[in-house]
Parts: sequence; C-alpha cells; structure tokens
Amino acid sequence: MSNTLAWNELLATRASRMRASEIRELLKLLDQPDIISFAGGIPDPSLFPAEAAKNATVDILSDPKSAAQAMQYSVSEGYAPLRAWIASHMGRLGVACTADNILITNGSQQGLDFLAKLLISPGDTALVTAPTYLGALQAFNPYEPRYDRLNTDGGNVTPAEFEARARDAGGRVKFAYVVPDFANPTGETMSLAARQSLLDMASDLDIAIIEDTAYEALRFEGEPVTPILALDIARQGHIDATRTVYCGTFSKTIAPAYRVGWICAAAPLISKLVLVKQAADLHSSTINQMVMHAIASGHYDAQVEAARDLYRGRRDALVSALERDMPAGVSWTKPEGGLFVWVTLPEAIDGAALLARAIAEERVAFVPGAAFFATDVKRNTIRLNFSSPNEAQINEGIRRLARLIRNS
Amino acid sequence: MSNTLAWNELLATRASRMRASEIRELLKLLDQPDIISFAGGIPDPSLFPAEAAKNATVDILSDPKSAAQAMQYSVSEGYAPLRAWIASHMGRLGVACTADNILITNGSQQGLDFLAKLLISPGDTALVTAPTYLGALQAFNPYEPRYDRLNTDGGNVTPAEFEARARDAGGRVKFAYVVPDFANPTGETMSLAARQSLLDMASDLDIAIIEDTAYEALRFEGEPVTPILALDIARQGHIDATRTVYCGTFSKTIAPAYRVGWICAAAPLISKLVLVKQAADLHSSTINQMVMHAIASGHYDAQVEAARDLYRGRRDALVSALERDMPAGVSWTKPEGGLFVWVTLPEAIDGAALLARAIAEERVAFVPGAAFFATDVKRNTIRLNFSSPNEAQINEGIRRLARLIRNS
Repeated sequence: MSNTLAWNELLATRASRMRASEIRELLKLLDQPDIISFAGGIPDPSLFPAEAAKNATVDILSDPKSAAQAMQYSVSEGYAPLRAWIASHMGRLGVACTADNILITNGSQQGLDFLAKLLISPGDTALVTAPTYLGALQAFNPYEPRYDRLNTDGGNVTPAEFEARARDAGGRVKFAYVVPDFANPTGETMSLAARQSLLDMASDLDIAIIEDTAYEALRFEGEPVTPILALDIARQGHIDATRTVYCGTFSKTIAPAYRVGWICAAAPLISKLVLVKQAADLHSSTINQMVMHAIASGHYDAQVEAARDLYRGRRDALVSALERDMPAGVSWTKPEGGLFVWVTLPEAIDGAALLARAIAEERVAFVPGAAFFATDVKRNTIRLNFSSPNEAQINEGIRRLARLIRNS
Repeated sequence: MSNTLAWNELLATRASRMRASEIRELLKLLDQPDIISFAGGIPDPSLFPAEAAKNATVDILSDPKSAAQAMQYSVSEGYAPLRAWIASHMGRLGVACTADNILITNGSQQGLDFLAKLLISPGDTALVTAPTYLGALQAFNPYEPRYDRLNTDGGNVTPAEFEARARDAGGRVKFAYVVPDFANPTGETMSLAARQSLLDMASDLDIAIIEDTAYEALRFEGEPVTPILALDIARQGHIDATRTVYCGTFSKTIAPAYRVGWICAAAPLISKLVLVKQAADLHSSTINQMVMHAIASGHYDAQVEAARDLYRGRRDALVSALERDMPAGVSWTKPEGGLFVWVTLPEAIDGAALLARAIAEERVAFVPGAAFFATDVKRNTIRLNFSSPNEAQINEGIRRLARLIRNS
C-alpha cells in the first residue's frame, strides 16, 4: 500500500484505507449473551461435521505415510485429489474444467486478495455493486483501486464512459466483482439475462469478472441460475479462453475454520495465481486439504441439504416476522437462499444510529448498511443475518426492532 | 502489482517479477527416487508428532463446545491461548511481551508478505543480504521494491548514502531483512556486535528490521545469540517502542503443514497487521491453531531436542564429507544449526551449470546459489540442505559431487 511514512510515524498512525476496525469493534460488543444478534454472517455450528472431521483426521494420521504427507510442506496449487474433486463438482454446476483450472486458497477471501494483487495497480478501477460484500472491499482496498458503480439490473453507463472515467482517474477498468447468488448483503440473485449482460459489458471492456459464489449452494427453492463462468465457457468454447474467475469456498457448506476455498478459472491465470500463492504463504494447510477432501467426498450433498433445511426455516421465520411487525415505509428483500435479508428503512432513519439505540434500548444487533457501500451510500439500510439466531430469537428480535423503528 | 495489461494480454503473458517458476520446475525434477537431493529445505518427516496431533484433534473434536469453536470462524489476531503460549515462549528467548504483541500467520512466509504489503510502495528500497532467503524475495517482489545490499559483517555504505540511493530510485528505505540465526541459504549466524550495528543503522535510517527466525530453535552447539528484538527492547525500554519485527514459525520445530507462524512486534504495528490479516484471509485455521497450541504446550522442548539431535548428526556428516572429498578451491560454511551449508566453488564453475551436469551424470541435486541474490550475484555458489538426506546419502552424495567438481 502507498505509504510514505517513516517508521515512527507509521507506529503512531492508523493504516490507511481500512475502516474495518470500526466493524470489528462493533462485532466484539455483540458477544454479550443477552443480545439477539442478526449481525454475524457465520454458519450455525450445529451443522459442522465434527464426527466426519475427526474420523478423517484419525485415518490420515494413523498411517505413517499419509501422516508424513499431511504434516509436510506441499505444492502451492493444492492437494491433487481435492483439486480433482472440485473440478468434478464444478462440472456438476455446468462448468467443464479439469484440476488445472483449480487453485486451492484459504477460503474465498484469499482468492479476492490474490486477484486484486494480480490485477490492480493504484488508481485502477474496480466495478462493484452498491452495496457489495464488505470483505471484498477490505481485500481490494490495500491495492488502492478506485471504485465505480456497477448495476446488475441495467442502467449502467456505457463501456466507453466507464473507460473514460477510469482514464480520468489515472488507471484502467480491471474487473467487475459480483456475488451473483444470494448476495452479501442483499440476498438478491442475478437473473440469467443480467449475467449475460455483464458478460457483454466485460467483453466490451476486456476485463475480468470475479464471480464470488460463497452462498451459491444454499438455495432453498427455485431453479439454480447458471454460473457466469459456465455462460462464459459456452461463449468461448473452452474455460481457458474465459475472463470469468469463480471464487468458491467450503466455509458455508462444510466449515469455515479449515480455511479451504478455491479459484476456478482459465489455466493460464491459475498458473500465475499459483506464483502469487507461493509468495503469499507457500500453500494452504496440507492436512486441512486432505480432511476437507475426505468430508467433501463422503458428505457434501448431505451437508448442503442439512444447511438448506435449517436456513430455509430461519429465512421463513425472518420474512414472516418482518411482514408481521414492521411498520409501513420499511421494505426488505426475500432471498431464495443464502444468509441475509437487506432492509431499507424510511429515508430519515440512519442504520448506524439505529444500531446504537437497538443495542442500548432493545438488546438487538445487526450491521448498518452504510458499511457495504464503496459508492452511492444509502444510510437508511441494515443487513439482517438469519443463520445464527434461531426461530424464537428471530421472532423476538424482529418484534423488538420493529418497536424501535416505529418509535424512531 | 503494476499491471497495465488488458485481460487477453494478461492471459497470454507471464506474471511480472516472479522468477520462482524456474526453481519450482527444478524442484519437481528432484522427486525422481534415484537422485540424492540436497536441494530441499524441508524437515525430516520422521520428526513429525503425528500421535500428539491425532490425540489433540480427537480431544478437540470430541467435545461439542470445543468442536464448534475449532470449526468456526475466529478472530484475525489468532487463537488467544496460542498467542499467550507464544508470548511466554518469546519471554524465554529474552523478549518481554504479551499476547497483544503476537499475530498468528500462515507460517512466517505470510508474515513476510504482510510486512511488504504494509511497508513497501513501488520503488521503495528493501535492504537484504547477498545472498538472502529466496522465499523472502518472492514475498517482497509483488510490491515492487528496489533492493540494496546489506552487509551484516560490516562494510556498509553510510545511512545517508543508503538514503540518497533510495531517493534517486524514487522511494525511501523501508526495512532491512535478515535471518540472523543459521541463515537460509548460508547457515551463518549474526554476532551480537553485528546485531547491535544493524540496530544502530536502522535507528539512523528510521526503518524497520524484519528478523526472520525460521531456524533459530535448531542450534546444535554453542550459546544462543540474543534476538535483535530483545536488544531493541533493551534500548527502548518496551517492546511497543521497538522497530524490530520478529517472524517466527512452528514449521521447522513441529510441522510445516499446519501453516502456523507468528509475528511478534510493537502492539501498534500488530494492530495494523491484524487488519492486513483480516483483508488477506480473515484468520488462520482455528482448528490448526488449537492443535498447535496443544502440541506446543505438551511437546515443544522434546520436539526441538529431537530435531537438534537428528540434524546435528547430518550436519556433522555433511561437513566431514566435504572435508574428506572436496578438492582445493572449494570452501563452505560450518553452521552451528539450521538446515543448510553454503558452498563456494572455484570462480570458473557456475552453480546452475553444475546442477545440470550433477543431475545428468551423478544423480545429485542442490540449489544453485544464484537464485538467492537480489544484488551482487555470485554464480559460483550452491546451497546444500542436510535435513532431508540421511547420513549414508550425504556421504555418497558428496562423494559424487566432489568427483564432478574435480572433473569440471
């Protein structure tokens, strides 16, 4: 990051361009046990396959040869059987590829960091929706992009206008970042037509599309929409000629703490990202990749089904409670999957101010929407998570929150 | 990284500034079973505490509460009991600190990446020895530093001259990077006087010192030399006023594949690095940190003692074989610890050319020294690792290598 400070000044000042600290401080407050929290974005731990993880670990570490492999340095691209499993999994999603199209990363977050590291020079432009995933902005910010607003439901400026603005800012448009399925924070899903339009625009601009699919597996109802990468392959004839970079993860389907995600993309790009991975941390944990391979091979579909069932019930409870309790002037999304509902408040209510009162007066928490905007901030918004609170907490929490909003 | 290429050009060209690919290709060749390899830098897997790792994992995953913690997202700074254990371990090394001075990283490699990310803007200067650790250069290169040569045994230009050169190159001197104990690749250790001189110079320049201690625990004989960070604390009165950033790891003492290392430094710097960690990959694997805490708490000293005993014997075998077999004109270091001996060949012999012949004619491998220089390349050098080959292989391998050198 650009830093012209000397050592002593550096120690004394805050790191530039990282406003995540405020969010972190906020989230720490929320550990207080009497607070009903819609603030997190984490899986319900009752879904974690602890027994399968234990059995896989015991199997791996009981055999001297596999134990030696599991505890030793390994290649930067990732554990070959896991890459092969993921390639096959991608095939089931409509993405024809091989293990050469897969890089293992520490969750999809590390994929976002690597892509910004590879693509962004200071002043270059990243196209992001308003709002977008806060963690993506945190991953991109150290490389000092300029952000321009991407609309996924039409109404974009022309590619030439995007280019002209980027040039005026001293760089070029480098990528468009989207969470096409049950987006964080809105819960919304891009239609097939919206995905095709985005591909048209990316082609005109000759830029990458970063397709963040963290929540893709968590569809509660309706038909899956084809991944952008699959649409790109259909246009280009082969994955190695595509511009779409798919970032996947096991964090929401199996467990986050193994830190195993992946990038699926054109093999020439994967080759470059392998070098980025090697420079960044050599490789992802060998034993974790082996354990994840065992769990994914044996239990992936059952894990996903259990998560869908649990979260579908909570989404239903949340949407019903909102319909039951919220006053006129409040609106919300009705996601077909994922972990989040996005609420738009009356114009006069600031989400951050509401949070302060919600914690103090009603012992309810959520994330103020303003945190998710790189451009065009709408302060009268909040994000509600429904994977952590249970249905009773959801009902009681929304009752309290609605009371506060009615009195605001 | 600076990248003004459009997407299609990017796919068609190699990533800039990363020559690691050649090394990787080379190392892949060395998996052939009839080759005696001095090329690696990896621990002997017979030392891995597989039973302790298995027991720790079973304990953690058998209790529902600790299983839920182990598999869930966790804080970016790291698992609190592990940070506390490391703070106490640092105290034993003479570094008075608390858990607030510790950030958990994915091995020390990730620490190097983060420090370059925080400190280096393109054109800034990093001071490195010639030779230095290749992985550090790979970590730093994406941030586009200029390198200037640091001598750890005297003979440096003045701080003013370092500054003037950095200014001429369009940046500032940002840090000095050293591996003070049994360095990779030379095996050499900085004296106390050399450490004090480096602190003097860093103070004059107002720059950070990155103290990479990957091999520090592996001392076979002689007295430990005080860590630079401890000397810095003695000067400043408190760790939070120091400029030395200590990068430690369990990779060489317990096992690399858990990817658990740490940074120990002034708390204000740790606070900034926590944000870098969060942006890069949210946090290191929770379960791996919990397992590593259990192993370190119960077995650290026994692990280190076993590693010292094994590697001491191999170092002795390697140095004896070199003395026995090498012709006049070849010299080598005699490290008191670590994993490497550095060999200087007669001027006319290029290490890379020798490697090609060594593999083809004698089935022996090593790493050519040129790979380790950011400045002032000396091609008549090679690095020999003694942690992977056993004593019989060391004897036979050096016999073959000496024969080839005599005939060169």
